Amino acid sequence: MALVPPIEYDAASPEVRAVFDDIRSTRKVDWINNFWKILANDPASLERTWAAAKEVMGPGEIDALTKELIYVAVSVTNNCEYCIHSHTAAARGKGMTAKMLHELLAVVALANATNRLANGYRMDVDDRFREPFAP
Amino acid sequence: MALVPPIEYDAASPEVRAVFDDIRSTRKVDWINNFWKILANDPASLERTWAAAKEVMGPGEIDALTKELIYVAVSVTNNCEYCIHSHTAAARGKGMTAKMLHELLAVVALANATNRLANGYRMDVDDRFREPFAP
Amino acid sequence: MALVPPIEYDAASPEVRAVFDDIRSTRKVDWINNFWKILANDPASLERTWAAAKEVMGPGEIDALTKELIYVAVSVTNNCEYCIHSHTAAARGKGMTAKMLHELLAVVALANATNRLANGYRMDVDDRFREPFAP
Amino acid sequence: MALVPPIEYDAASPEVRAVFDDIRSTRKVDWINNFWKILANDPASLERTWAAAKEVMGPGEIDALTKELIYVAVSVTNNCEYCIHSHTAAARGKGMTAKMLHELLAVVALANATNRLANGYRMDVDDRFREPFAP
Amino acid sequence: MALVPPIEYDAASPEVRAVFDDIRSTRKVDWINNFWKILANDPASLERTWAAAKEVMGPGEIDALTKELIYVAVSVTNNCEYCIHSHTAAARGKGMTAKMLHELLAVVALANATNRLANGYRMDVDDRFREPFAP
Amino acid sequence: MALVPPIEYDAASPEVRAVFDDIRSTRKVDWINNFWKILANDPASLERTWAAAKEVMGPGEIDALTKELIYVAVSVTNNCEYCIHSHTAAARGKGMTAKMLHELLAVVALANATNRLANGYRMDVDDRFREPFAP
Repeated sequence: MALVPPIEYDAASPEVRAVFDDIRSTRKVDWINNFWKILANDPASLERTWAAAKEVMGPGEIDALTKELIYVAVSVTNNCEYCIHSHTAAARGKGMTAKMLHELLAVVALANATNRLANGYRMDVDDRFREPFAP
Repeated sequence: MALVPPIEYDAASPEVRAVFDDIRSTRKVDWINNFWKILANDPASLERTWAAAKEVMGPGEIDALTKELIYVAVSVTNNCEYCIHSHTAAARGKGMTAKMLHELLAVVALANATNRLANGYRMDVDDRFREPFAP
Repeated sequence: MALVPPIEYDAASPEVRAVFDDIRSTRKVDWINNFWKILANDPASLERTWAAAKEVMGPGEIDALTKELIYVAVSVTNNCEYCIHSHTAAARGKGMTAKMLHELLAVVALANATNRLANGYRMDVDDRFREPFAP
Repeated sequence: MALVPPIEYDAASPEVRAVFDDIRSTRKVDWINNFWKILANDPASLERTWAAAKEVMGPGEIDALTKELIYVAVSVTNNCEYCIHSHTAAARGKGMTAKMLHELLAVVALANATNRLANGYRMDVDDRFREPFAP
Repeated sequence: MALVPPIEYDAASPEVRAVFDDIRSTRKVDWINNFWKILANDPASLERTWAAAKEVMGPGEIDALTKELIYVAVSVTNNCEYCIHSHTAAARGKGMTAKMLHELLAVVALANATNRLANGYRMDVDDRFREPFAP
Repeated sequence: MALVPPIEYDAASPEVRAVFDDIRSTRKVDWINNFWKILANDPASLERTWAAAKEVMGPGEIDALTKELIYVAVSVTNNCEYCIHSHTAAARGKGMTAKMLHELLAVVALANATNRLANGYRMDVDDRFREPFAP
């Protein structure tokens, strides 16, 4: 059980309801998942976090499914049970197949391994890799 | 300076040279980056790690650029300097633009934040998120 | 269920009882929480860890509530379920309100995000930030 | 050297300058640190991150110095060199003494240790610790 | 419940059965633990991960029990519940006593603490510690 | 450069000198490494940390070299540059060969990978692994 209770729509303040409404219309779903109901205990955090999620996960140069795969990769590395479930479900809704889930987790496992080989041996970065991006 | 010196091609054993050759032909590059030169101090680890990287990062259901973005996301979360540089370079070589790098890091930052909100509040996973994949 | 069973007061050795007694008198509580009962399987670790906790969390330049907030921040970042619950409870006992919990988690989320932006972009530390403390 | 170059005020777009101006007036400083100059390569991320930092680190139930101590605690746990330096400097500017820095790091070290004892022994959370906050 | 269902021997493909058979004969056990049954949803990952585990955890310069202790130390640091249980059990099967478990967790706790003291104070590495290994 | 300057023996207080003397006699070395010199800015932390290190890393059921290998494994997983260097050096002083270093890092890499496979797939722990230790 979470540290604070979920805030249901009917019991929510107008500002919280406005965020809930925007979540449902943006995502084209008819329910609100627990993450937002819990966060609704702190309306400022709810608004700020939802606005960030809407902007960052919205249309851009990286497609929506790839963004969800990246989200799952971070959540697996940090071991966030809630986020693994919620963003795996989101990725499935955007087209992730079981085969893609397997490949995703294989890349995450490999990266976690080689991160430790590079850090463990204290490997020096090749000069060729240090060329900065143009602004 | 790394814990062990890099093994250069000319000083390498035949088995190490074979891996170096395969890295160059698979990646269509004419040089070997430091990761593999350091790992060459342990030929078994070099062979195993390269075989895994070749298989996991090779053709599949997730395209090559997306796999590199996932790799960078994990490396940033773990703070592996070497891997951030090497896989950012690899992603650029596969088409990542500066705008995509910004979006990638924005998703990584958001996920690291919400991972802590979910874990910190001890949020319960919604039942709807728990439906397993078919095998 | 933990890897080892909790040691209850009645079944404890005199050295373990002495630590349990000190925990109760120092904290002015009439019970021993599971952390110490489990650790009592290794009396040397119990004594050392309790002595460290008593010293580090005791009176000093940083007030007791702030120290608990810091403890929760670390525990959330590392995802230690036990420690989040126990130190959130301790913080409440020292005056943390629900509003403070929300602010705490918002700071933790923000820091986890910006840590990855700074590490991900490999940001150079400004010289002005490097001025050391006087001893 | 960072993955992207810092954006200096004179070379910045009007929207970036507006954020830089707000940072300087909010913090009452006459310079912009590297974090924001690098982030300015992605104006949307700059605006969003600064707005979040201004809101989360601004006046509330937890005082400004305590928020900086929490920020440092997270940054040390994650090993973000940039953030340790910048938020240690910020904490000093808000009154953190050397003695407080020592106490802060002692709490962070203790919490990182006991997090692993609790997770390592798979300790069960005491029922008394699970009482949720009122909304 | 896991994201994908476990694959039981009777329902497994010949290639998966071959890995399961090798696990049982290598480990001299008559059952397959859940890790491999879940991984069997991705036969390539199953084969690669088992081959790596067999090679890395097999005979070498570091004895089998010590390798399991190292495995547990990493798993505790990362908070992998499954791996803590499975590798603690493996270590017990190779001779780890309760006293050794306590010492192991005490070292893990100490290292996690001093890692943060070293990173938090930004300690410079002594030159004497930087002497590389001969190849 | 560290956040605080190192305290050299000649400038140290009697209580700090006593710890430095004990470090040198316990370890049979004629110098003090930077970790302790920096920590000497907080004599209470110096004494507490050294006493813990002396006790935890001292004679017990796990031999001294194995304890150093465990220490390195944690430090690599957390990416503590100082601790990787200092405890790799300590391990070498106790007999770790280059081959053992390679095996150690291979186990650390494998464990970091499989930790994410187990957490990522949300694998259920087998009942057989849950049998607790006798006290």
